[in-house]
Amino acid sequence: MGGFFTGRTLAEIGRGLRSGEESATGLLARALESVDPDLNAFVTLDPEGAEAAARRADEELASGVDRGPLHGVPVAVKDIIDVAGLPTGMGSAHFHGHVAETDAICVTMLRHAGAVIVGKTGTHEFAYGGSGDVSVNGPVRNPHDRERMSGGSSSGSAVAVAAGMVPLALGTDTGGSVRIPAAFCGIAGFKPQYGAIPTGGVFPLSVSFDHVGVLAGSADDCRIAYRALTGPSGPSEPSPSPSPVPSPVDGSAPRERRVAWIEPTVIEAPVIDPDVERAVRALFPDAPSERIDLLEIRRVFRAIQDAEAYDVHAERVARAPGRYQPPTLERLEHAGRTPGWRYLRAVRERERFAREVAGLLDRYDYLALPTLPITAPKIGEIEGPFGPHVPALVSLTCPWNVLGLPALSIPAGTVHGLPVGAQLVTRPGAESLLFEAAERLRGDMAG
Amino acid sequence: MGGFFTGRTLAEIGRGLRSGEESATGLLARALESVDPDLNAFVTLDPEGAEAAARRADEELASGVDRGPLHGVPVAVKDIIDVAGLPTGMGSAHFHGHVAETDAICVTMLRHAGAVIVGKTGTHEFAYGGSGDVSVNGPVRNPHDRERMSGGSSSGSAVAVAAGMVPLALGTDTGGSVRIPAAFCGIAGFKPQYGAIPTGGVFPLSVSFDHVGVLAGSADDCRIAYRALTGPSGPSEPSPSPSPVPSPVDGSAPRERRVAWIEPTVIEAPVIDPDVERAVRALFPDAPSERIDLLEIRRVFRAIQDAEAYDVHAERVARAPGRYQPPTLERLEHAGRTPGWRYLRAVRERERFAREVAGLLDRYDYLALPTLPITAPKIGEIEGPFGPHVPALVSLTCPWNVLGLPALSIPAGTVHGLPVGAQLVTRPGAESLLFEAAERLRGDMAG
Repeated sequence: MGGFFTGRTLAEIGRGLRSGEESATGLLARALESVDPDLNAFVTLDPEGAEAAARRADEELASGVDRGPLHGVPVAVKDIIDVAGLPTGMGSAHFHGHVAETDAICVTMLRHAGAVIVGKTGTHEFAYGGSGDVSVNGPVRNPHDRERMSGGSSSGSAVAVAAGMVPLALGTDTGGSVRIPAAFCGIAGFKPQYGAIPTGGVFPLSVSFDHVGVLAGSADDCRIAYRALTGPSGPSEPSPSPSPVPSPVDGSAPRERRVAWIEPTVIEAPVIDPDVERAVRALFPDAPSERIDLLEIRRVFRAIQDAEAYDVHAERVARAPGRYQPPTLERLEHAGRTPGWRYLRAVRERERFAREVAGLLDRYDYLALPTLPITAPKIGEIEGPFGPHVPALVSLTCPWNVLGLPALSIPAGTVHGLPVGAQLVTRPGAESLLFEAAERLRGDMAG
Repeated sequence: MGGFFTGRTLAEIGRGLRSGEESATGLLARALESVDPDLNAFVTLDPEGAEAAARRADEELASGVDRGPLHGVPVAVKDIIDVAGLPTGMGSAHFHGHVAETDAICVTMLRHAGAVIVGKTGTHEFAYGGSGDVSVNGPVRNPHDRERMSGGSSSGSAVAVAAGMVPLALGTDTGGSVRIPAAFCGIAGFKPQYGAIPTGGVFPLSVSFDHVGVLAGSADDCRIAYRALTGPSGPSEPSPSPSPVPSPVDGSAPRERRVAWIEPTVIEAPVIDPDVERAVRALFPDAPSERIDLLEIRRVFRAIQDAEAYDVHAERVARAPGRYQPPTLERLEHAGRTPGWRYLRAVRERERFAREVAGLLDRYDYLALPTLPITAPKIGEIEGPFGPHVPALVSLTCPWNVLGLPALSIPAGTVHGLPVGAQLVTRPGAESLLFEAAERLRGDMAG
């Protein structure tokens, strides 16, 4: 487990850099030393490019230019996000030898924030799957048990953070692809509201649901990274609460937030671990239970994602089907047959769910539920794209992509020795409520 | 052919009513006498309801209340448009015995304009076809040759006007369903821009393309009816021309309008009658030719229509497939399989075509082309929904549904003794250009 960055927060790293105890080039060296090839987190390392960036970061700090909390920090980037001059492989033989000419917008944001891009991390092929073990680069292994899957699709980004190779990584999340591997690997993963981080330069999976997100050791580091990326005038300020929130006037703690427990009734997934639900539920003992038809939202998710994903891939499927990993091809062929009328109905259903959940978020500050109803299965155990266990992967995460809501997965202890994640969801613009709640829960768990 | 209203304009009828030579009850009697059951134009007649409306119209006129050019005029309404208290049969066994509770909005508009609703006219089943010979009510016959199809789907409305049973009828037009039967039957048919006449109370076929339109003996009567329906403050005022149009300052005729000839290259329809193209082209001898990929627009039309039509019918297909006419069921089953990704691509293509045609309509006041590339085939000759001749029916009309543009079909003489139609298309809000052009062409043809 223990790479250099394990347990080190961005704040600690920043203090070390600014006190002169540590340097960006030194941090980069620690990162590269911490890379464990057996985990298969990175598909490309860029020691030269990173070295140049780290030297610039050190020179800037020395000359008094401070770009903020990501300045000089080694960061990993998922391999469906373009970094100029590096391969973008998509985990697919289709993109063998493909080198990006231009940085994705989120990568440019990273650079402006002073981050040092260490390399590219393994992804489920074309980000089209939540297990993280289907890729031309082979499965990404879970550092808690190397026989187990990391979860996906931002598999390598989660493992690079979880194993202490870097303190922060970029991922993408279309149905849970940041939060799922974060939960399976015992770290934090945050997907902001739809559109908060631009997707330019990110290979599309399903344009209505694609989000860029961040993975870090803690919710607080997700918050710091997200704020640094989107800037103080970004979309990260909380919108006014629909009910007046009394502010603390005497230095007391902020008032208790209203939280609802969303029952994880994923009726189609045969393998649901009740111990996972119990472990997460225990963190919200006083939260009233609410029900949302998560199963139906997943159908909405599938219908829209199918149409959009096949739209992206139609020509590749026709031209070179054999270059896909077999499960990916099987999924795509199914997606290509999903009828248009189901898409239309899904778009209407989505509006209905948006109204329903907006009503809930008028009554509650945030919603809580497990990130996944299971712990990480063994690699290869989720067989094919339509196996019985597949719905377990995205059923609790994809609703918040369908609705474009901010969603945070935080470590919530272990079950049978494997990490589980608690997921917090709120209304657009109210991300700070999630980070505040996560901080409070961390205190509860520590105490 | 010759029912009472053959050759009688709305203006003449209105003069007769206002001079006291004629009455609304008298006109209604003439209409009912003119109904020729062998043509199968009407599926429901409402002599009592119409009689009451006609009497009211006469009383109003006598007491000085004049509702304008449709006051006291007998009108027929297509049988997918609700008229309160009358059956709406949709040409389908599925709606056997179904009686509408409320008037469609366009019917309420008719009533406010003083029209007398004579009855309901035969439609291609669910308006889902352009031949007009697929219906639980049997084929509607072309008054020019009773062995030939009327065209559809507003079959009965076209034949009721063409055979002089009424001077005006309401139809609907999703891919040409007003203009096609108007052209085959030798009358005028006008579909305004998308949304100009509300579709509330009209059974949907494809919500993105559904339009309510009018059928009458001449373009001028279409103009009068359309203006009477939508009122002086409606969407019928021409928008400013993108280029300054010099207005006549000395009482001379308005300037010659710029017209482009759209080449009717419908490459997938094997039966195209070059004599039809020649006959219509001869009306626009000086118009430069322009090309639009009509074939590709038809694909866009089909993909969007398929998804939307099956969305409307999915439960009926599942529950009682045998109640559809076999060609309708075959079409629906095909539509239900059309993949969602094709729908998404069609939506994008549609935007591209909208920009292309908007560019053309910056350079030209209107576009001209045949309404159909053929004259009316024999009943049953267009076999099944996917026969080789099917594309001939909508290929020249559906592009203007896809783009939501005002389109007018006017009689353009005969070929081999059967009527042909010329179609004029313009930008939203510029309908008056079409009616002006039609008037000028009528003068040319007469002279």
